[in-house]
Amino acid sequence: MIRAKVIGATGYGGIGIVELLLQHPGVELVSLVAREEIGRPIDEIYPHLANFCSLPVLAADDPAAQVEADVVFCATPDGVGMVQAPDILATGARLIDYSGDFRFTTPEAYHDYASRIGRNPVHASPQLLGSNVYGLTELHRDAVRTAKLVGNPGCFAVSCILGLAPAVAAGLVEPIGLICDCKTGASGAGKKLNASYHFPARYEQMNAYRLSGHQHVCEVERELGLLAGQEVRLTFTAQAVPVCRGILSTLYGALTRACTEEDLLACYRDFYKDSPFIRVFGSQKAIGTMHVRGTNFCNLTVSVDARCNRLRIVSHIDNLMKGQAGSALQNMNTMFGLPETTGLLRPANYP
Amino acid sequence: MIRAKVIGATGYGGIGIVELLLQHPGVELVSLVAREEIGRPIDEIYPHLANFCSLPVLAADDPAAQVEADVVFCATPDGVGMVQAPDILATGARLIDYSGDFRFTTPEAYHDYASRIGRNPVHASPQLLGSNVYGLTELHRDAVRTAKLVGNPGCFAVSCILGLAPAVAAGLVEPIGLICDCKTGASGAGKKLNASYHFPARYEQMNAYRLSGHQHVCEVERELGLLAGQEVRLTFTAQAVPVCRGILSTLYGALTRACTEEDLLACYRDFYKDSPFIRVFGSQKAIGTMHVRGTNFCNLTVSVDARCNRLRIVSHIDNLMKGQAGSALQNMNTMFGLPETTGLLRPANYP
Amino acid sequence: MIRAKVIGATGYGGIGIVELLLQHPGVELVSLVAREEIGRPIDEIYPHLANFCSLPVLAADDPAAQVEADVVFCATPDGVGMVQAPDILATGARLIDYSGDFRFTTPEAYHDYASRIGRNPVHASPQLLGSNVYGLTELHRDAVRTAKLVGNPGCFAVSCILGLAPAVAAGLVEPIGLICDCKTGASGAGKKLNASYHFPARYEQMNAYRLSGHQHVCEVERELGLLAGQEVRLTFTAQAVPVCRGILSTLYGALTRACTEEDLLACYRDFYKDSPFIRVFGSQKAIGTMHVRGTNFCNLTVSVDARCNRLRIVSHIDNLMKGQAGSALQNMNTMFGLPETTGLLRPANYP
Amino acid sequence: MIRAKVIGATGYGGIGIVELLLQHPGVELVSLVAREEIGRPIDEIYPHLANFCSLPVLAADDPAAQVEADVVFCATPDGVGMVQAPDILATGARLIDYSGDFRFTTPEAYHDYASRIGRNPVHASPQLLGSNVYGLTELHRDAVRTAKLVGNPGCFAVSCILGLAPAVAAGLVEPIGLICDCKTGASGAGKKLNASYHFPARYEQMNAYRLSGHQHVCEVERELGLLAGQEVRLTFTAQAVPVCRGILSTLYGALTRACTEEDLLACYRDFYKDSPFIRVFGSQKAIGTMHVRGTNFCNLTVSVDARCNRLRIVSHIDNLMKGQAGSALQNMNTMFGLPETTGLLRPANYP
Repeated sequence: MIRAKVIGATGYGGIGIVELLLQHPGVELVSLVAREEIGRPIDEIYPHLANFCSLPVLAADDPAAQVEADVVFCATPDGVGMVQAPDILATGARLIDYSGDFRFTTPEAYHDYASRIGRNPVHASPQLLGSNVYGLTELHRDAVRTAKLVGNPGCFAVSCILGLAPAVAAGLVEPIGLICDCKTGASGAGKKLNASYHFPARYEQMNAYRLSGHQHVCEVERELGLLAGQEVRLTFTAQAVPVCRGILSTLYGALTRACTEEDLLACYRDFYKDSPFIRVFGSQKAIGTMHVRGTNFCNLTVSVDARCNRLRIVSHIDNLMKGQAGSALQNMNTMFGLPETTGLLRPANYP
Repeated sequence: MIRAKVIGATGYGGIGIVELLLQHPGVELVSLVAREEIGRPIDEIYPHLANFCSLPVLAADDPAAQVEADVVFCATPDGVGMVQAPDILATGARLIDYSGDFRFTTPEAYHDYASRIGRNPVHASPQLLGSNVYGLTELHRDAVRTAKLVGNPGCFAVSCILGLAPAVAAGLVEPIGLICDCKTGASGAGKKLNASYHFPARYEQMNAYRLSGHQHVCEVERELGLLAGQEVRLTFTAQAVPVCRGILSTLYGALTRACTEEDLLACYRDFYKDSPFIRVFGSQKAIGTMHVRGTNFCNLTVSVDARCNRLRIVSHIDNLMKGQAGSALQNMNTMFGLPETTGLLRPANYP
Repeated sequence: MIRAKVIGATGYGGIGIVELLLQHPGVELVSLVAREEIGRPIDEIYPHLANFCSLPVLAADDPAAQVEADVVFCATPDGVGMVQAPDILATGARLIDYSGDFRFTTPEAYHDYASRIGRNPVHASPQLLGSNVYGLTELHRDAVRTAKLVGNPGCFAVSCILGLAPAVAAGLVEPIGLICDCKTGASGAGKKLNASYHFPARYEQMNAYRLSGHQHVCEVERELGLLAGQEVRLTFTAQAVPVCRGILSTLYGALTRACTEEDLLACYRDFYKDSPFIRVFGSQKAIGTMHVRGTNFCNLTVSVDARCNRLRIVSHIDNLMKGQAGSALQNMNTMFGLPETTGLLRPANYP
Repeated sequence: MIRAKVIGATGYGGIGIVELLLQHPGVELVSLVAREEIGRPIDEIYPHLANFCSLPVLAADDPAAQVEADVVFCATPDGVGMVQAPDILATGARLIDYSGDFRFTTPEAYHDYASRIGRNPVHASPQLLGSNVYGLTELHRDAVRTAKLVGNPGCFAVSCILGLAPAVAAGLVEPIGLICDCKTGASGAGKKLNASYHFPARYEQMNAYRLSGHQHVCEVERELGLLAGQEVRLTFTAQAVPVCRGILSTLYGALTRACTEEDLLACYRDFYKDSPFIRVFGSQKAIGTMHVRGTNFCNLTVSVDARCNRLRIVSHIDNLMKGQAGSALQNMNTMFGLPETTGLLRPANYP
C-alpha cells in the first residue's frame, strides 16, 4: 500500500484528493494536515465523509503528522510547498504540489511568473528547480514516471494546453495570437469566502475578471511553446459563471493551412491515442461540462471556421478533478508504476 | 457474474442504475431496453458514458433483447412493469420494479392507491400480488433476500418512512396527524420535459404542488401503520426547489411522552444499527442534502420542540440514489446474497 | 418631497430601500451612511446604480451626514438602531428600523427576545419602547399612520403572520401547536460572507438550521396571540435552499371546526380586503415565489387536509421586499399619508 | 395614449413587452393575441400579473382582436410577422417585429439569411423590404423615428454590434477575423420546452452549440460592414450557461494601430454620448451581467491586450430586455416621439 499524506486537507483541493484516495485500491491515507480546524476529525468538518474517514486534522508541526509517507500532496496555495519541499523530499517521500511553486524549472521562469501576479519573485528552494516535472501527464508521462517532485498544473492551463497541444504540435496554427476564452465554475476559486462567489452575487452572474492578466498564462505559453518549437503568445480571458464544477475553454487560432474538421479529428485522436482520459468529438456532438463532471476526463470538441480560416476547439474539464485532484492522482499513479486510471475511472453521475 | 437487464434505460432512473451496474464488481450489463432512441448506443444518448458502455438501446420486442438475465430492472412508470412482470419472471429472472405497480400486496390496496391518483385501479397481474415485496431494504431485509419480485419504494416515501419509522415503532408519536413537509430537487420529476422544470421557470422558484394529494402517501401510511400496529394518517406537502438532486423532508409528530434529543438519538441509532446507509445526527450538526448527494445514504437529524411537545426529524436523501437507483441496487445485492453495500459505498463528491 | 436618509446603506437591506426610493415620485434621497466603504460613491460599490445615484457613503459622524431628513431608515442589524434612535427622533425625523430593536414595546418583551438569541437583553433606549409600532402595515395600519418610530418586521415573521392571521383571528385553528415550516433564499442572510452561502456550498444544498430556535418566533407568537386573544405557541423550522430571493412558508394548524377551502378563501379575502399587497389563491392555482419576486406582494395559497382535520397555508414573499425594504417603504408611505402602494406597485419580471 | 397590441403575448418576449407596457405612462394595452391558451386571462397564465392585467388571450382571427391599435408588437418567431405585416400596416398601425423577418432590407439579403439557417428563403412580403428599418436604436435612431415597420434586432446581435461598433467605425480593428465569443442565459431559448434547458440538464452545464453557424451572424456582419465601409467577417461561438437572463459577449479584434485602454474609453464614450442606455467602463471595474439584469442597459468593458496587439470588449445585456422587449419599447418610444427612456429607466434589483 502506498502511504499518502495530504497537506492543506481542508480546502477543496485537499478534500478532493482525500475522497479519491479513500476509494483507491492501493493507497492508505496516513495523515491530514492543515492550518485551520486543527484537532477536528475530517468527517466533522466534512460530514459527507462520515463512515469513511475520521482522521483528525493535524498542525504541520504536530509530531503525529510526521508519520512516514510514500507520497505527500501539498494541496496548498502558492508559497507553501516551496518552503516545505526540501524536508518532505528528505524523508524519501515523493511530492505532488498543487500550486505554481513547482510548475517552472528555473528560478528565472519562476521569477517571471511570480512577478506577473505580484508575488515575491524569489523562489524559496531554487536548488530543487530543474528536478521538478510539470505534471500534465499527457505531455510528460515519461518524466512524471521517475519524478520525485511534481508541480500539478493550473486548472485553466490543463484545459487550454490539452485543447491546443495537438494543433500546435502539428504546426496547424499560428503560434502568436492564439485566444483562450475560458469560463469557470465557482469552485475554482476555492473554499475561501469571496464576495464574488457569495451565492446572491453569483447565481445569476456572468463576468470576466483579471482582464489585465491571469497567472495561468505563463505555463500555457511555455508548454505550447515547447511543442511549437517557437514562442507562443496568447490572449487569455477568465470568466466566471454560476456553475460549481467545470471549465469550458473556447480556443481559437489562425490556421496555417487549409484544414477540415475530419483532419482535426484525425490529428487529435492520434495525438491522444495513449491518453485514456482524453475524448475527442466532432462539432455535431452535443457535449458540455456535465459530461465530465466529477471525473478526470477532458472532452475536446474540434471545429473549423472556414470563412475566417480559423481553428476552434472547445475544451471541457471538471476543474476540481482533471483540473486539480484528479490530475494529482493521475500523476501519483504514474509515479508509482500503476495504470494511470487506477481509482480514477468512473463515469459522471448524470444529471 | 449477475447478468442484468434494464428496461426504461434512457430515463434518469434507468441511466442511474446503468451507471451503478457499470461500476459493480459482480454484474454484467447484458441488455438495455427503452421505447425511445431505439438503435442508438447508450453513450451517444448520454455522452458521459463514452468509453464505458456502448450497448445499443433495444425495443422491448427485439429478439436481441430476449437475452437471458438474472435480474431485470423495470425503470419504468406506473403501468409498464405490471404488464411485463409475468413474462420476465417466467424466464427465471428476478425483477425489481421502480413504479407503484408492485408496492402493494393486494388488489384492493393497489385499487385504493391507483384511484387516489386517477389511474386505472385494476391491476394487470393481480396473481403476483402477495408474492411481491416492498423494497425498502431497511425494513424488509429478510423478505427482500428471498424475493423474486420487488417493488422499489417511491423517493418521497423512502425519506419519510426512514425518518419516522423508529419513532413510530417505539410508540413515541401519535399515529394520527403526522406531518411530512417534503422538498424535492427537479430530477425527481424525471427526464421528461415539463413546464415546471424548464430552467427559466425553476432557477429561482419554490412552490408547493399537488396540494390535493400525492401518490406516495399510501405507502408511507401503510409502512408506518405496520410499525405502529394501528392506522397512521398524515398530512403530506410536496414542494419543489431549484436543486437537481435531493429530498429534504421535515417530519413532525406529537410526542406521546416526554422525550429528549438524547433519547431520540439512542432510539434511532439502535433501530438502524444494522443499516449501513443510515446516519443519525443530533440537531447541532450542520447537515444538508449535499452530504448525501450521489450516494445511497439517508442522513437523519433528530430534534425535539419541547415547548410544543413535538418530535421533528429532518431526513436527507439523494432522490435518484437512495430514492431510486441506489435502493434498487441495494435490493439486488440483498436478493443475490451480496453485502448490501457492494458497489454502493462511496462518499459524495464535495462540493 | 420627503427627504430620506439611509443608515446601513451598503447592505442588501440598505441598497433595497435605495433602489425603491430612487424610483419613488415623492422622495429625495439626501444621505447614505454606512460603516464600510466610506467615501465611495454608491454606484461604485453597486455599479447597477450607475446613472442613477452617485451619493457618497458617509460615516455616521460625518458632518455632511447630519443633513436634515424627514425619514431615516436604519437598515442595520440588532443593536444599532436602539442607540441612534433618540438622536434621530430629536431632529424631528421619523424612523423606520429594520432590526429587532423596535419590534417589542416593553423592556421585558425585548429582554425575552434578546435572551432567546443570546444578545444583551438590556435595551439601550427603554424610554422609547411603548411609542414604537410594529410595522406590519396590514395589521397595524392606523398605528403606523401616526407613528414616529416603526420596527420593521422580520422576513420570516411577515410570511408567517400574514399567512396565519386570518385563521387565528377567526378562531379557526388551535393556538397551541401551530407549525411554520419556512424555506428561505440566500439573500435573507445578507451581504456578509458566510460559509453556508458560499456558492459551491449552496448551489445544490437544502438544509435546516437553528433547529434550537429562531429569533423571529417571538414576534410571530406575539402578533398571533394578539389576534387570538390568548397564548399562541408554534414550532418553527428555518430552512435554506438555493434561491436568491424568496421565502416560502408552509403553515399548519389543527382546525377547531370543519372548514372547506371555500370557507378559507372567503375568510382570507375578507380579512385582506383593504390590503393591496395580499393576493389569496385556492390550492389548484400554481403559485410560487417567482410570482412575487422583486415585488411587495404576499401570495397566500389556502387548503384544507380534511383527513387530518388540518389547515395548510402556503405563504410566498420576496424576503428583500415584503420581507424588508418593501415593507419599510409601505410603512413610510403610510406614515406620510401617501397611498400604501406609491412607488411599490409593479409586477414581477418573469422569468 | 398609444394603443398597443401584442401578438405572441404568451412567450417570454410577449410577456416581457406586456410587463413594460403596463408600467408605461403613455400606453394603453388593448389586445393580446397568441396561438395557445386562447380565452384565458393573461394573469391566469402568468399569475405574477394578478391585479395588473386580466386581458384575455385572443386568437389572431377573433373579431375582438381586430381592435384599433397604434402599434403592434409581433413577439413571434421567424415566418409569422412577414405574413401578417401587410394587414397590420394597412390598418395604419406601426409594427415592431421581433424575428428575423424584417432585419434585412432586400429579398436577396433575406434569402442569404434564411438559407444559412435552413428556412424557406423566399420572403412572404418582399414588397415591404426596403421600407423596414433595423431597430438597433443606437445606430439607426433617425430612421427608426419615422419608420412604420421595424425589425427588432437579435439578442446576440445587439450585444456584439454595440460592443464592436465604435472600434469598427473608427477603423481600429481589422474587419476580417473578428471573434464574438458569446454566452447566453437560458431564457434566450424562449418558453418552449427544450431538452437542453430542462433544469436537471442545465443547472451545472456549460456548452457551445450551433458551432456550424448561428442565425445572428448575418446581421452583425451587415451592421458592422456598414460602419466599416467594407466587408466584415467574424467567427461566432454561441454558448449556454446556467443563468436565466443575460448575455455576456467577449469580442476580440486585431488592432490596426497601437491603442491604449484610455483611447478606447474616449472612443467608445464619444460614440455613445447620446445613447442613454450604454455605459462604458474600463477593465479595472468589476462589471457583470447582474448589473444590467431586468434593465435596458448595455454595459461595455473595454481593454487592450498589448502583447498580442488585440482589442477586447466585454459586452453585457439582459437578453430579454435590451436583447428583446426593452429594445422593442425603446423603438416604440422613438417612433412616437417620446424620450427613448420613457418607461424603461430603472436600475436593476440587486441581488
